[in-house]
Amino acid sequence: MSHPLIVRRDLDFLLHDWLGMDDLLAQPRFADHSRETVDALFDLSEKLALDAFLPHYKAADSDEPWQDSEGVHILPAIGTALKQYADLGLFAAGFAPELGGMGLPYLASSASFAYFAAANIATAAYPMLTVANARLIATFGSAAQVETFALPQIEGRWFGTMCLSEPQAGSGLADVRTRALSDCSDGLGNRFRLTGNKMWISGGDQDVSDNIVHLVLAKIPLADGSLPEGTAGISLFIVPKLLPDGTRNDVTVAGLNHKMGYRGTANCLLNLGEAGGATGWIVGAPGQGLAQMFLMMNEARIGVGIGAAALGYRGYRHALIYARERLQGRLMGTRSGPPVAIIEHADVKRMLLAQKSYAEGALALCLYCAKLVDQDGNADSAALLGLLTPIAKTWPSEYGLAANDLAIQVHGGYGYTRDFDVEQLYRDNRLNPIHEGTTGIQAIDLLGRKILRDSGTGLKVLRARIADSVVRAMAHPDWRGDAMALDRCWMQLADAITVLGDATGTEAYDNATPFLSAFGHAVLGWLWLDMALAAAALDHHDALFAQGKAAACRYFFDYEMPKVDAWLAPVAARSNAVAGVSSDIL
Amino acid sequence: MSHPLIVRRDLDFLLHDWLGMDDLLAQPRFADHSRETVDALFDLSEKLALDAFLPHYKAADSDEPWQDSEGVHILPAIGTALKQYADLGLFAAGFAPELGGMGLPYLASSASFAYFAAANIATAAYPMLTVANARLIATFGSAAQVETFALPQIEGRWFGTMCLSEPQAGSGLADVRTRALSDCSDGLGNRFRLTGNKMWISGGDQDVSDNIVHLVLAKIPLADGSLPEGTAGISLFIVPKLLPDGTRNDVTVAGLNHKMGYRGTANCLLNLGEAGGATGWIVGAPGQGLAQMFLMMNEARIGVGIGAAALGYRGYRHALIYARERLQGRLMGTRSGPPVAIIEHADVKRMLLAQKSYAEGALALCLYCAKLVDQDGNADSAALLGLLTPIAKTWPSEYGLAANDLAIQVHGGYGYTRDFDVEQLYRDNRLNPIHEGTTGIQAIDLLGRKILRDSGTGLKVLRARIADSVVRAMAHPDWRGDAMALDRCWMQLADAITVLGDATGTEAYDNATPFLSAFGHAVLGWLWLDMALAAAALDHHDALFAQGKAAACRYFFDYEMPKVDAWLAPVAARSNAVAGVSSDIL
Repeated sequence: MSHPLIVRRDLDFLLHDWLGMDDLLAQPRFADHSRETVDALFDLSEKLALDAFLPHYKAADSDEPWQDSEGVHILPAIGTALKQYADLGLFAAGFAPELGGMGLPYLASSASFAYFAAANIATAAYPMLTVANARLIATFGSAAQVETFALPQIEGRWFGTMCLSEPQAGSGLADVRTRALSDCSDGLGNRFRLTGNKMWISGGDQDVSDNIVHLVLAKIPLADGSLPEGTAGISLFIVPKLLPDGTRNDVTVAGLNHKMGYRGTANCLLNLGEAGGATGWIVGAPGQGLAQMFLMMNEARIGVGIGAAALGYRGYRHALIYARERLQGRLMGTRSGPPVAIIEHADVKRMLLAQKSYAEGALALCLYCAKLVDQDGNADSAALLGLLTPIAKTWPSEYGLAANDLAIQVHGGYGYTRDFDVEQLYRDNRLNPIHEGTTGIQAIDLLGRKILRDSGTGLKVLRARIADSVVRAMAHPDWRGDAMALDRCWMQLADAITVLGDATGTEAYDNATPFLSAFGHAVLGWLWLDMALAAAALDHHDALFAQGKAAACRYFFDYEMPKVDAWLAPVAARSNAVAGVSSDIL
Repeated sequence: MSHPLIVRRDLDFLLHDWLGMDDLLAQPRFADHSRETVDALFDLSEKLALDAFLPHYKAADSDEPWQDSEGVHILPAIGTALKQYADLGLFAAGFAPELGGMGLPYLASSASFAYFAAANIATAAYPMLTVANARLIATFGSAAQVETFALPQIEGRWFGTMCLSEPQAGSGLADVRTRALSDCSDGLGNRFRLTGNKMWISGGDQDVSDNIVHLVLAKIPLADGSLPEGTAGISLFIVPKLLPDGTRNDVTVAGLNHKMGYRGTANCLLNLGEAGGATGWIVGAPGQGLAQMFLMMNEARIGVGIGAAALGYRGYRHALIYARERLQGRLMGTRSGPPVAIIEHADVKRMLLAQKSYAEGALALCLYCAKLVDQDGNADSAALLGLLTPIAKTWPSEYGLAANDLAIQVHGGYGYTRDFDVEQLYRDNRLNPIHEGTTGIQAIDLLGRKILRDSGTGLKVLRARIADSVVRAMAHPDWRGDAMALDRCWMQLADAITVLGDATGTEAYDNATPFLSAFGHAVLGWLWLDMALAAAALDHHDALFAQGKAAACRYFFDYEMPKVDAWLAPVAARSNAVAGVSSDIL
């Protein structure tokens, strides 16, 4: 109860009692690791998050990044924290030993990351982006590119960014206008000169790393000088802030975006090529940019999910601590005697159980997917990961935020003030339904690419795993009714998918977002039931902990699962009450 | 389309085509008014809101109130705007002519207020509180108190506050500790010396009005010096910042609260009696404080609802304007050609229709209740007003905020920046589910005082009005199915109420909040159906407008009404999955 970050017992439950991380660790590629080394990682993650990330949570919000003629400056405490993060080798946690990494399972490095995301998401965003950047270069770059640009990031000396959006092209990457003109080739590959504007660049500039590696999506013009249409013409380029010879590249910060939250992460509009062209080296072949990005997308989206879950989780912990301490009112039907702790009021319990089911459920979902990343050599696991990724991105973003909303409410007026952390958690978390693909984009990805246009493998694997949980729950008197409810729910979803599959044209997508909402809750219902079964198997020392998991599962089935029907209603009816509306009547 | 505030055609529809304000204006007490005078009020309200309130919306957020040795200072533009508001007689709009007022129906003054709330809720909060304060004194105070303290507020020269909460007593007013010791009596009545701390005092100090009238809840000690238990011992006192002789009263600002939003409204912790006792005059008889406050509560809570609805409404307008202008992506199934306005994407339409149904629905609900205030001499209307008040407070607060959340989402990354207004609307609106009684408190009020412990009059009147709408809708081919759905929904609610009425002890209240959620949506479904019928009766010049109302109603029935079942599920089952949980397992 001493700190508001991830509860270690909970993490151990998820990784060991529920997800069976020991099976992963038994794989030859993780031979260097054991439960002990992973435990040690969590010990130091928890300590560093508490000592170096949490203390500047508010300062990073109130003292926003600022810009002068030298560039962008960020709160020095962010640099200090990230120096320690690098010194402990945490940038390298998930990389293979041959890249200087610890070679930990993605599951373990993700769980470690959850501590930092809970403590200070804006500071944690720098390594999150850096690791994603380095992994992309390590996967698709040449040996020289890996050596020059990935390794310094894996060491945590350089940081990385992802430059996709432009002012006129956010979700619509087909309209990227940044141009890359072929220049020459050198030891780092084919060199280009880039001109264009890149928007929403998190970590686009700062003064704490020795260099910044921008990964930039751009188009190589056709012979007539025009840009190729669509996304097929997008290529990926490495554009460092400082060139290998130490000189400044032609990348300038046109401005800082001033955000509602997530403020410690400097977010920039970058101009490339104001002085003639920013130097960039292409990664792989021309036209592969979006495909390369997409191959990394699962991890990036799970990363967003973990961040959102961690914010929701921390808000729940704050609310829980507050609700135990704050005395107010009396139990219903009681008029005298001293005030009671507000945790005893039914409505406060409701808000806490909802937060618990959202935050712990969201973290469980993300770690479940992280394990699938470690198993993605297996075709079934890879298909399931693809299917669940839009849920892992969206559900924590929506319900982590909902948990933060309830955390404010539990605090009453105090929660609305900056004297407490919950209002900032709420502001920070509001970004998550937007970046790395909005909720609406995820909905189309789920329904289109992952269900209707997929061979059906992912859904088949998911249904089989749910069926397995249902069978096990049917044998458990406490959960039999819920197992039946879950089974019915998935039959309804299957019916809805059939109806959508029969749609002509694009009408199947008219209600993609309500479909995503229904699907997401149905996945979480399954995970909660599965966790309740794992909790029921714990030994009696863990009785209180197990009862907590059971209560959250019970809450989810009684209060949340009925919502699935409500979201499915217009989907199953193929309502065109939305898509059929002419925009001029709005 | 030129401004983001309330659309005049919409207001006219609500007041004239739907609520029949002409019937109100035909009453003898409104003989001075006509449609023309009310129209003139709206003309000047719209203009003043645009000219003097909207321009400093952002400045009032970024330049927060500050305190020095002289007291609290607020942005000068707030004072300038409120001076104009006073000069136009708008503080006086809803007061009777004998008090210097315009004698307008509450319906009309509420609609006027919606412009200011939409333009700048933090600035509008000062007159909202001042008017509520003056009305309380005008209702319960002596002639001398009205003359001395209410009239200067009605003129807008002095502002007022409501001092209820204390640091240890927010929702739990029984635990108020502010003490009032009898002093003497003078021309203003029985005088007391008050000592205590009052928390969350909006407008608790500022430098733009000539004086501040605090209305303070306090307890008069018993003979043994102890304070009476419970709420019965609470009295109401007038405690001005400056005493009638011009000297400072013993009221000091102990600190300013720094809030997530609503920042232009200075929010203070006030210390009373640091130098021996703040001078206050009791209003009416001792022990009547809470009852007096409660008699004014309907209006205060509808006022919060109007503010929340107006914020949701303005966010919708911003999102709509943005969605028509912003070009991005192509229609599903189209890969070439120029980008389209995002309003053409089904998911953006969904977010806009949801906002329209929330924001316009919330405003309709509040104005419906405002009309009931004007009719509260009628017992049925008064009972219905009592029943609907917790909905008018809560539903706009929850769904106005939900609308603001969607307004951000429509703007994408831009909506998350302070360059646009929607993030501030979202922060401002987050206060509304908290103040003037949290959502949880409203739920207990609805279920307990207004339904289970009421004679049933309010619910009977409501059911009769709904039945009338259902009968009319059954005759309309477009709405027959929805009429039947609404009727079924209310039968289910009636069944749930029967089940709750059979509960023993306090278990009926275990799920009061989900009950409130279900009841609220069921009320809005009725109002939307009723508005759709009114829109269908408009003449053909209004065809586009009418189609917009029909589309919002259709959205509400297809996408929102199915949620009622989900909320009612645990209520009807009398689930104790929340209340039965022991707090130590959380």
